[in-house]
Amino acid sequence: MENLIKPNETLDDLQNGYFLIQKKEGFRFGVDAVLLSDFAALKTTDKVLEMGTGTGIIAILLYAKKKPKNITAIEIQEEMAEMANRSVIYNKLEGHITIIAMDLNDAPKKLGKAVFNAVVTNPPYMKAGCGIVNPSQQQAISRFEISCTLEDILDSAYEVLIPGGRFFMVHRADRLVDIIYNMRIRKIEPKRIRFVHSHIGKKPHLILIEGLKGGKPELKFMEPLYIYDEKGQYTKEINDIYGRIK
Amino acid sequence: MENLIKPNETLDDLQNGYFLIQKKEGFRFGVDAVLLSDFAALKTTDKVLEMGTGTGIIAILLYAKKKPKNITAIEIQEEMAEMANRSVIYNKLEGHITIIAMDLNDAPKKLGKAVFNAVVTNPPYMKAGCGIVNPSQQQAISRFEISCTLEDILDSAYEVLIPGGRFFMVHRADRLVDIIYNMRIRKIEPKRIRFVHSHIGKKPHLILIEGLKGGKPELKFMEPLYIYDEKGQYTKEINDIYGRIK
Repeated sequence: MENLIKPNETLDDLQNGYFLIQKKEGFRFGVDAVLLSDFAALKTTDKVLEMGTGTGIIAILLYAKKKPKNITAIEIQEEMAEMANRSVIYNKLEGHITIIAMDLNDAPKKLGKAVFNAVVTNPPYMKAGCGIVNPSQQQAISRFEISCTLEDILDSAYEVLIPGGRFFMVHRADRLVDIIYNMRIRKIEPKRIRFVHSHIGKKPHLILIEGLKGGKPELKFMEPLYIYDEKGQYTKEINDIYGRIK
Repeated sequence: MENLIKPNETLDDLQNGYFLIQKKEGFRFGVDAVLLSDFAALKTTDKVLEMGTGTGIIAILLYAKKKPKNITAIEIQEEMAEMANRSVIYNKLEGHITIIAMDLNDAPKKLGKAVFNAVVTNPPYMKAGCGIVNPSQQQAISRFEISCTLEDILDSAYEVLIPGGRFFMVHRADRLVDIIYNMRIRKIEPKRIRFVHSHIGKKPHLILIEGLKGGKPELKFMEPLYIYDEKGQYTKEINDIYGRIK
């Protein structure tokens, strides 16, 4: 199995029986992927599409935690998709997770309309042209809306979801207005929101949001999620969420 | 002056040199009015419209704290407007605050288009038809969208505001999606948001929001505001805000 890992890559133990291949110098998964895979309320009967899987971390965590019927995970960068696929093979998850190199704008055409129960996504956070673009093109595609915008994601998600299908996303809190406006106008009604704060008393930096295709307006707030306690250690809830990886 | 107060009313000391007439058995002002008048960033050159002033509490607090050029405060319930006007007279604020009994839907026609620098509002929180309607019609109008909806308020606010005019509102946090969607679609872009939590770790129950007529998308979050500390006492910030009434 070791020949699945290239010299510029690492094999990281997810501490849940699964492993992840990541580039030594590339985009490495963060707490947002762990929070999203915990937040996404999936059933064991769900057919799930993950948009923009990158290393495959979220697909693997979703399978480990929620055991949905199957997960299709798409990624526009062929080299990333190829690496994610090697993680799937390493973990012997080929029967559960299918990695496809694909532009998410092509998903309804290539994968079908109204075929998924749930879409899960951790998209690029930054508008293209805002802030400093990362010198590495691969990292830039992961962080900036170069290959797809929030609007693209929602348009595709609406098409591939069944009526009543659910949409789960983690994003930057300061994109809140764009997120809510674009979800409602595309009839993926925001139903559940959780803000993530680094510390008590700090402004939220991430948002976890669940939408319902064709849902009626009725929003539920969850309690805020704090990452660090006053000593700079992970809070009990974060430790529990990392524990629930298993 | 005492003949300004009727037998079924109280005269309450706002502890800032001003007083407020309220009904003994009616809608009495709460922390939301105090928070909104603190949140609204007014300049001394601003012409301000307050929509749905009720007892007049917010107009009086705004004048006490921010000294805008003038405040026009409208209220659909004639009996409430008459009482609010007596509070203005009692406080000798006739030169600064003008109370008018008026449906806010008529404001652009009766007060003029593009004439105010700022709109401030603490509207009814509940959709008409949701929840238990208060048996008192007066309280019901203050709490439910019977006389005006959020959409009505934003339509009128857009008309009466100058280009670049600012909109300040306090509302229930669980109306977040309605608020953001309706603000953006009416080109009153949400620019600043603050969530209010009763306690650390609890879901937010109120939202303070600032919009800019014709503004570009760029949202700033403020730190969360906590009302009570772990001992059930007002937090230092709430005490400071009540202190800033003066």
